[in-house]
Parts: sequence; C-alpha cells; structure tokens
Amino acid sequence: MKVVVLAGGVGGARFLQGVKAALGMPAVGEPEEPSPHEVTAVVNVGDDVWMHGLRVCPDLDTCMYTLGGGIDSEKGWGRLGETWSVKEELAAYGAEPSWFGLGDRDIATHLVRSRMLRAGYSLTAVTEALCDRWRPGVRLLPVTDDRVETHIAIEDPEPRAVHFQEWWVRHRAEPAARAIVPVGADEAKPTPAVLDAVAEADVVLIAPSNPVVSVGTLLAVPGFREALRGTKARVVGLSPIIGGRPLRGMADACLSAIGVETTAEAVGRHYGSRQGSEEGILDAWLVHTGDTADVPGASVRAVPLLMSDVDSTAEMTRAAFDIAGVQP
Amino acid sequence: MKVVVLAGGVGGARFLQGVKAALGMPAVGEPEEPSPHEVTAVVNVGDDVWMHGLRVCPDLDTCMYTLGGGIDSEKGWGRLGETWSVKEELAAYGAEPSWFGLGDRDIATHLVRSRMLRAGYSLTAVTEALCDRWRPGVRLLPVTDDRVETHIAIEDPEPRAVHFQEWWVRHRAEPAARAIVPVGADEAKPTPAVLDAVAEADVVLIAPSNPVVSVGTLLAVPGFREALRGTKARVVGLSPIIGGRPLRGMADACLSAIGVETTAEAVGRHYGSRQGSEEGILDAWLVHTGDTADVPGASVRAVPLLMSDVDSTAEMTRAAFDIAGVQP
Repeated sequence: MKVVVLAGGVGGARFLQGVKAALGMPAVGEPEEPSPHEVTAVVNVGDDVWMHGLRVCPDLDTCMYTLGGGIDSEKGWGRLGETWSVKEELAAYGAEPSWFGLGDRDIATHLVRSRMLRAGYSLTAVTEALCDRWRPGVRLLPVTDDRVETHIAIEDPEPRAVHFQEWWVRHRAEPAARAIVPVGADEAKPTPAVLDAVAEADVVLIAPSNPVVSVGTLLAVPGFREALRGTKARVVGLSPIIGGRPLRGMADACLSAIGVETTAEAVGRHYGSRQGSEEGILDAWLVHTGDTADVPGASVRAVPLLMSDVDSTAEMTRAAFDIAGVQP
Repeated sequence: MKVVVLAGGVGGARFLQGVKAALGMPAVGEPEEPSPHEVTAVVNVGDDVWMHGLRVCPDLDTCMYTLGGGIDSEKGWGRLGETWSVKEELAAYGAEPSWFGLGDRDIATHLVRSRMLRAGYSLTAVTEALCDRWRPGVRLLPVTDDRVETHIAIEDPEPRAVHFQEWWVRHRAEPAARAIVPVGADEAKPTPAVLDAVAEADVVLIAPSNPVVSVGTLLAVPGFREALRGTKARVVGLSPIIGGRPLRGMADACLSAIGVETTAEAVGRHYGSRQGSEEGILDAWLVHTGDTADVPGASVRAVPLLMSDVDSTAEMTRAAFDIAGVQP
C-alpha cells in the first residue's frame, strides 16, 4: 500500500512512527526488512532558514532524526548526545542570531546540506543523500525545492515582519501574529516526486501537525492543493486540536492569526472537504474522543488522538485507514 | 616603531609572540595596554581552503589563536579545549574530505568568516572582525584578498596536482612534490593595507616560517616582492633551517621540490639580497649559532634561533633589530 503523509516537524515525526508501526514496518533500532508498503512524507519547508550561512530545515531533520534514531526524544527535536561548542564560540564572536542555538552534531547535517545546495543539488536530492545515513524507512520529500519561508507580521510595537523561527523560538509566539505569510510560495511549485506520490497514493493522511504553519504552508505551494483534490486516494485528516487546545506547540497562536477558532471542527472546516467546497482537501476528519465536528462533505469520526506512544499512534493510523476504506 | 613581519602559521605565530615580547607588549593573559609600537603581520593565505563549504585559513587562525590565547599550545595549532562532534558526524555521513579534521570550536571561526566572505566582505575585513574577539595585539593582514592556493604536483603514480593541505595533512608531504604552484597568484595583488604597512615600516622581519609554502607564497603575489625591495626599512630574515634541518615541519620536502638545499645559506641565497641581486629582498640574514652562510649583498650573523620559549624568541627579535640598526 502506498501511503502519503502531510507532515510538519515534531508532531509529524511522531505520527510517522505510528504509521510505520501500523504497517508492520521495523521501528528504530530494529533490523531493516523489505516491506510491501511505501510511506512518503511530504514535509513542510516553511520553517527552513539560513543561520550562520547554513541551511537549516527543522521539519525535515526532525522527521529524519526521529525515524532514524538520532533524535533527542526528551525534547522531541535536535540530536541525541548533542554538544554545544560551536554555539558557545559563535556567542563569543557576538555572531547573530544568538537566540537560535545550533548543536554541533546538528551542524554537520547543515554543513552537508548547505554544501550540496550550493553545488546545485535540489533539496529533494540533498534530503535523499542525508537519509542514506539515517535510513528513516519512509521517503522524506520536501514539498518543494523552491525557497518558501514563513514570515510573521507582528507589532513590536512598530509593525514589522520576522521569520517564523524568530517569532516562534525567540519570541515564543508573542507578540500576536497579524498575518502569516509563506514568502516565496507564489513562485514555488511542488516537486515532481511529490506530485507523483500524491497521484499514486492509496491513501493520504494529514498528520496532526500545526494546521497553519506546517500543513498550511504545504497547501500554500500552488498546485499541491490541486494535486490533493485530484488524487484517487481518500484524504484523511487527524485533528491537532483536542478539547479546544493544541495537542502540542502553539498552534492556537497561529490559528487566531488567520481567524480560525482553536477547535477540531474549525480546523476541519478550515481544511474543508473535497465534496463540500471548492478548495477543500478532506474526505474524512478524525477528531479526538469527546470532540465533535461537522465538516460538510467529509466523514467525521471520534477516536483517541493523543500520540502518547507509538502503539496509540499506530491505532490512530489504523482508524484513518479504516475510515478511508483501505487495508494494509 | 613600526614592525612588519612576514609570517606563516605555527612558526610565524611563535615568532610574533617573541616580537611582541621584545617590544614590551603584553603577552597572552596580561591586560591590554597602549604601546608606542605597532606590529603588522603579513600572513600567508596559500594554505587556505574550502572544506565542507567553510573557508579555512590555517595560518591566519594559528596566528590569531596563538596571540589571542585560544591555541592548543601542545599541538601548536587548533583550539584549546577543542571538541570533535562535527567531525564525527561528517564521518558518519561519509562526507569528504575525511582526512582533514575540523574541530567544533574552530568551525565557529570558519562559519563567521564564510558568512562574511559570502556577504562580500574582504578577507582583510573578516580577519579584523575576528580579531575584535581575539585581540592578538598585532595587526594580522592576509597578504592578498584574492584567492591564492598552493597546489602540489605529485606522481601518485600518475601525475596529478593536489591542494597543499591534501599533500601536507593527508599524505604527510609524500610523495615527492614535482612542483609547487601558487594557483591564482598571477591575478592576485597585495592589499593596500599590506603595501602601506611595508612602505611605512621601520623594519621588516621574515619569520623563520617555511621558505617555500609560507614566505614563498607571499612573494608569489605580484607586487609584494617589489614592495619589499622598495621599502626604506631594512629587511631581516631569520633562517628556518638549523644545522641542515628544518626548525619544524617538513620544509625540506618543499625545498627539494624547488631545487634548493636544506641549508641556512641556500635559503638565504634563495631569498637573495636587495643589494646583490635583481629579485632579492634581504638586507640581513640571521642563521643559527654554528651555521654559516654567504649571501652576497646581505649582512649575515649567527645567533641562537631555536624559539624554545618566548624569551629566546624575543632575543632573536632583538638580534634582528640590532642587525637592522633599529631600536624600539
């Protein structure tokens, strides 16, 4: 079975672990073995940024490290056994930005990537090369090889726009976002690999990632939404909002910025259904047990959506397969 | 007094410590204080190289770290308290070259430099910015802002040319160098700061650095030799060859490549004198006690040249000042 997953960083990576488990694929540390199934993650690049001359791709790396056994699983991002010599030295030089800490081990990834990008390789090719080492067991595809970076319009107190990372990491999503803009999206296009994966998918799952700055930025790449609307596969979304609060992170701050309530129903309606709206992408919408949602044109089902561990996440995946009518 | 020193890496850095001491300037760890004297080091850039997308300038950095208190003084190069996480990770990615180990702390320097170079700053400006942190107490000037890199023609067994670093670090100066070529020198020029420093110097000292790949590469930059020949200051060289062997490093392998014997006299004659030859640069040549040299047109004196510690190196400097007829 061919499964496509729309994914951001930490939440997307955890969800992908559950998808692999639901398909009987080996977990981290288990020996690789051939699988009749194929998982492709279409990953957000809006958080990507040049830092100290290095191209940093937080969502791709979080997926890669998580699935490849290199993640600091306590934090959910960054490298296991990380050291911080470079960061200390950059601070001693007064090099800006000082608020974004790059770990030494992580920097090696960015060095390999930046060198390849500067040599003309696409981000898709670079990601594949990095995954040669990590062997995440799923194909990780940036949604686009073009540069799309999420910027946030804030008032601080004067109006200005900052890169998503500055707002998220430096300012902890304060002050309030007045607008969230995927800079560069206008001229970006999905990669052929992404379009092929969506066209050939047996099912498409939308991970419970941030609906604005992760999934929203994927959808901002012209042609990707159309590809989802055109696929023969059913598209199943999993709500990242549980009981009116984000599963993790600060998704509420992003949702308010685009005028969407922090409820499972509002996010489902924001995605919209293929049947019930002209721009919608969902065939089905899974909400957490106890939540309700009416998304015209989409089947809705309530199941546990907590991702507490790989088993519960696999169970969520099975519920998604079930509502999509597919069976691995 | 204005002192200009032609310098390579480890030997040049040690010599500069002695020059500072001879001028009564504070050593590493002593409080900065104003000095009536001004030391400018014109530093070799032929060893510089792009590694993993980072611009590495071994000689400039060795001088900067040594004089700024950041050097690993046991090795003579690299950072004190260095860590090696990035190197381990690059090896895990199979990133080449694997034979050149960049330390984590050192990498921060290269990140700052590479970012500034890519933003269009000159190497001179970048070096000044890096020295804002290290405060080496001398002005460190790359001889040129243009790219000049020493390449070595070898037979391995087929003839090919490799970067100096590959020959030196990877192959430990074997196989034999058939030719030593300062690639890019043809189109390089000394910086205005270097030309001004030489023109305004009260004395010019040639550190006992490698006469081929350090001093030789400085002299390969068109216009620099002429500047030395034209300065009103006396030019004093200190022999890096003691009793027919290099003071340190593998200078003999470089000298054989250019057909110069490994003796103090042969190196003195290779530099030549301003009076006695059309291309020469020396007014005086210091050799080690017990060595002799006849360099037509240059005064020669034998003094201890071992650089065993800062005091003995300061004593060498005083001998150079003395033969130049200058007094701090």
